[in-house]
Amino acid sequence: MKITGYEINLENVVKNINKNNYQQVLLQVPDGLKTHFFKFVDFIEEKTNAKVIISADPCFGACDIPTYDLKKLDVELIIHIGHTSIPVIKNPKIQTVFVDVVSILDISKVVEKAIPKIKGKKVGLISTGQHIHMFEKVKKILTDNKFEPIIGKGDDRIELNGQILGCNFSAAKSIADEVDTFLFIGSGNFHPLGLILITKKQVIVCDPYTNEVREKELADLKDMILRQRYGAIARSKDAKVFGIIIGTKLGQQRIELAYKIKEILDSKKKKSYIFSLNHFSPFYLEGLKDIDCFVSTACPRVAIDDYMQYKVPIITPIELDILLGFKKWENYQFDEILS
Amino acid sequence: MKITGYEINLENVVKNINKNNYQQVLLQVPDGLKTHFFKFVDFIEEKTNAKVIISADPCFGACDIPTYDLKKLDVELIIHIGHTSIPVIKNPKIQTVFVDVVSILDISKVVEKAIPKIKGKKVGLISTGQHIHMFEKVKKILTDNKFEPIIGKGDDRIELNGQILGCNFSAAKSIADEVDTFLFIGSGNFHPLGLILITKKQVIVCDPYTNEVREKELADLKDMILRQRYGAIARSKDAKVFGIIIGTKLGQQRIELAYKIKEILDSKKKKSYIFSLNHFSPFYLEGLKDIDCFVSTACPRVAIDDYMQYKVPIITPIELDILLGFKKWENYQFDEILS
Repeated sequence: MKITGYEINLENVVKNINKNNYQQVLLQVPDGLKTHFFKFVDFIEEKTNAKVIISADPCFGACDIPTYDLKKLDVELIIHIGHTSIPVIKNPKIQTVFVDVVSILDISKVVEKAIPKIKGKKVGLISTGQHIHMFEKVKKILTDNKFEPIIGKGDDRIELNGQILGCNFSAAKSIADEVDTFLFIGSGNFHPLGLILITKKQVIVCDPYTNEVREKELADLKDMILRQRYGAIARSKDAKVFGIIIGTKLGQQRIELAYKIKEILDSKKKKSYIFSLNHFSPFYLEGLKDIDCFVSTACPRVAIDDYMQYKVPIITPIELDILLGFKKWENYQFDEILS
Repeated sequence: MKITGYEINLENVVKNINKNNYQQVLLQVPDGLKTHFFKFVDFIEEKTNAKVIISADPCFGACDIPTYDLKKLDVELIIHIGHTSIPVIKNPKIQTVFVDVVSILDISKVVEKAIPKIKGKKVGLISTGQHIHMFEKVKKILTDNKFEPIIGKGDDRIELNGQILGCNFSAAKSIADEVDTFLFIGSGNFHPLGLILITKKQVIVCDPYTNEVREKELADLKDMILRQRYGAIARSKDAKVFGIIIGTKLGQQRIELAYKIKEILDSKKKKSYIFSLNHFSPFYLEGLKDIDCFVSTACPRVAIDDYMQYKVPIITPIELDILLGFKKWENYQFDEILS
């Protein structure tokens, strides 16, 4: 089915439900598509015998697979729309299928616009799940213009070649040494920012939604984010009590890292407490009054994206290393969850 | 240990941990006591070998027992502070102990202040977990004044005699026919409001925190809440699409009720969708734009307490019955989750 610029293949899900005669399914829709929930439900309920329960909980990624027990409710299948799977994460309870949401926007124009900006010959292609299927087209444009496109392979948390997540840039790192430039196909700035910081290469954004090509703007934004992060670390310099956060979402549990951080803080005579947290909200953390600085081992984006919302600084494990003198500010990178 | 007017018996927990040589425990603290988290952690960590993880997720009741899997983290015991257990709910995964938070405020004065207001002879004693241990004292004052105190027994969701929850008034209902008046020992208005609506008897609040006795104020508040609830039902009269919410917290899952509501709406030719939701937030529900009215089978307090925060009306199953003509407005009651 088509929804505002996207193609969503629910037909296979319908086949799966009918083949197995499932009676009860749970549907997860990312927040950006939640307004369309009823189209998905109506589609499934019209074509199958299954009843659909829609998860109204926030959903930002494949990390967000529900693992709760619904007493007496035999959900036989979870249908997760809009994110590719994180292959290494298996839902321990209920079979979970991931339904791609694939952009139908043509990316030729914006890629052609980017051509004159490319420095060097070898071009790494990077994108998020929605645009990867356009890579053949991008490769053709690049080779027609005498460039050499290269697509990297990510680690076990990455489903598609050339794909990056906000928490995992392994597909880019795998080719960073050989490429001169990265072309990022997609919207938003978080992914290309991480790309610059981690690869130190030229990064050009081709945004198929706005038909914009961004390079200079990204560098400016990078400077602003770095100033914010430097500020967050500086504000934590005198912190006496640290709160180490473990994310309880299935894809975000870095428990060993949390304990390692506690050991390091212990060795530096810094008091710390370990918190478990499912969904971040400024309100939840404000109640924990005695914490001067939170170190989050959960979703790496929270500290960066939601910086302005929190009174107490939240820093990443890499930023803590900088704070404690184990890493140099010059080597600043976004935090990653690798497999 | 003592904390601002409360006695909290963590000593038994310490014994339990030491006896079983637990290495890893999870601590849950209700939001009202979260600022004191470090006192609990330090107490446990000083007296045992266990490492303590503090749950930073919101915690409003014994419903909120975490059931998530913490991969690689072997939590051996969950310590839930501040709520009595809901006996009928068993954590399917991890042994869970409930640690009472018991008020050390003397209630004699405020009960004596209430004496002249009591109509009739038979007085039902009702309270929340924190004050039930004072019932012997209250009984003495009442009998000294020639009243006959009566304490009811709740259903299988209620741990203590005479105890009510925001979602369960069964201990009051069990004696409603024989008593003339209810004395509610405690703070807040939700519980005594539910008590009036369900028992139709005189209810006098003895608030040991403020030393106030409230009766008239409660009647005024009841009128205001009833106006709000009438408004919520009236605003839902023309609703075309209903959203039925199933709470995924262990103590709030009323799945059969949700399906029953869907059947009834179907029979009335009203379109409806079923949502699962862990924690309520106006923001989460606002994304579901096509819903004109939510019917919540989760925590009965949400619809009433958070009325002003939601743009779309949320009504209880009882209120839906009134909306659809199955129940009369004159018999309005708060929704309950009974065992």
